[in-house]
Amino acid sequence: MELADIQAAAGRITDHIHRTPLIHSQQLNRFCDSELYFKCENLQKVGAFKARGATNAVFAMAEDQVQAGVATHSSGNHAAALARAASLRGVAAHIVMPVNAPQVKKDATLAYGGRIVECEATLAARESTLEEVVAATGARVVHPYDNADVIAGQGTVGLELLEQLENMDVVVLPVGGGGLLAGVAVAVKSLCPGIEVVAAEPAGADDAFRSFGLGQLVPQTDPQTIADGLLTSLGQRNFPIIQRYVDSIVTVEEETIVRAMQLQWSRLKSVVEPSGAVSFAAVLDHPERFRGRRVGVVISGGNLDLSRFPW
Amino acid sequence: MELADIQAAAGRITDHIHRTPLIHSQQLNRFCDSELYFKCENLQKVGAFKARGATNAVFAMAEDQVQAGVATHSSGNHAAALARAASLRGVAAHIVMPVNAPQVKKDATLAYGGRIVECEATLAARESTLEEVVAATGARVVHPYDNADVIAGQGTVGLELLEQLENMDVVVLPVGGGGLLAGVAVAVKSLCPGIEVVAAEPAGADDAFRSFGLGQLVPQTDPQTIADGLLTSLGQRNFPIIQRYVDSIVTVEEETIVRAMQLQWSRLKSVVEPSGAVSFAAVLDHPERFRGRRVGVVISGGNLDLSRFPW
Repeated sequence: MELADIQAAAGRITDHIHRTPLIHSQQLNRFCDSELYFKCENLQKVGAFKARGATNAVFAMAEDQVQAGVATHSSGNHAAALARAASLRGVAAHIVMPVNAPQVKKDATLAYGGRIVECEATLAARESTLEEVVAATGARVVHPYDNADVIAGQGTVGLELLEQLENMDVVVLPVGGGGLLAGVAVAVKSLCPGIEVVAAEPAGADDAFRSFGLGQLVPQTDPQTIADGLLTSLGQRNFPIIQRYVDSIVTVEEETIVRAMQLQWSRLKSVVEPSGAVSFAAVLDHPERFRGRRVGVVISGGNLDLSRFPW
Repeated sequence: MELADIQAAAGRITDHIHRTPLIHSQQLNRFCDSELYFKCENLQKVGAFKARGATNAVFAMAEDQVQAGVATHSSGNHAAALARAASLRGVAAHIVMPVNAPQVKKDATLAYGGRIVECEATLAARESTLEEVVAATGARVVHPYDNADVIAGQGTVGLELLEQLENMDVVVLPVGGGGLLAGVAVAVKSLCPGIEVVAAEPAGADDAFRSFGLGQLVPQTDPQTIADGLLTSLGQRNFPIIQRYVDSIVTVEEETIVRAMQLQWSRLKSVVEPSGAVSFAAVLDHPERFRGRRVGVVISGGNLDLSRFPW
């Protein structure tokens, strides 16, 4: 993974994604004694940065590679992102989802033109069903994060951030599978090695934190966090990139994730999903790392089931 | 009230308020079969358009008029807006609030430097307490909507909308006391008389709808609506302006206000308060009026008590 891959991705996807805004709040800055600039990937197409990687992966394929369509197993933002990217390219997207996936997620995938293939709610069933889909259709699998084109696509968040924010001291972003983190770290460190790259992870799903500390990949077992986008294990392809380019990984408490969301909703008037608030939670839980500094805070997404709220 | 008053207000407040963005969603446009452009006054200073009117009123005063400070009775967005404006001008703001006002609203007023004077929770107590404050301090009362400078300040929303959106067919905005509606209607009709101006009001607090239909001011009695910013009666000064410049007033159902909020939160990722969603609710409840048209939809504010949600 090199800067050139990310720059190529930026050119490839530019007509299909939003250049998301950078917003700030004087009140939050006073509250945190930092200069915080929030990169709003919750305002990205499909409501999350995942649109970038999926679009890059689909458009990077040669015509003969993509014509049988693409496939993945996911019930999250990657599913909607891949369905949308395939639709833009005019090919099929086969999305394997557990039967118990929330209707709101199925609807989003269908709205973007995806074809849902239901399976039982186990990882084994997901993987075997995906294999069957691939065997039957010839579709190419696009992994949600352990994929070079996906990583390069997510890295375009870093390129934009550098263009939008001068003299940034540090960038903080969530880590789940590590696609966003790896891509942004390569972009930022290649262009501005002096900028610190900090990853934030829920303490209840801290495989990246532990892997980074041990120097070897530790799989995620029994993760417990409200941040449902960060339940996955760090990817094989992602880990060495993160080891090379990321300065540190910090963990955040569940209550802080909720507080970060509330502050972002009330002060920024911006709907942020729990996973998307983990970066700001890191600023709240580790203020000494950010005090007096100019910080790029990546809001990774804004999709959550609002029907649970007592309207 | 003339266009020149609103243009003067725009010049007076430009350094102190945000030029708020106009956002749209392809999904919502397809859903409504309209071209909707949302004017985001929820992203305004203090989280509501009220910052414009209060700032204009405070800065329009001569030095000798303002030096003893300003005062109002309010527990809503006007209180915070007036406190902020007074602070910018370097004078005191005395805000009369009922003892049972939510702590979050008191905190907002205090955060902007306002001085809270508590009173009993009746309109009579509010008014007599305000009179006492004025007698004791010499502060000048700034009414939340029945005030020419406030109306002119709110009208700057209309000027911006005309600059930001070409070929607008219709503008739709909420009406409570009528400050925003009167100001925007004057601005829009003076510059582009062909643009239709539609006001939206909750069916459970429809004094403006009834007053407009009868041709005489009907006071609001026992209003019942989730849109807490629209509980007030239409102002004396506002009504004749609205009669002259507004094309129609429509009412919306409570369930539609909630649905409008949910759609705005989930599709625009933007936190909109109930009163702020009433304009979009009008599009949902009266689709035939907006179908195929290019619509400016004013989101008036984004302040609500998020602590009630089950985080």
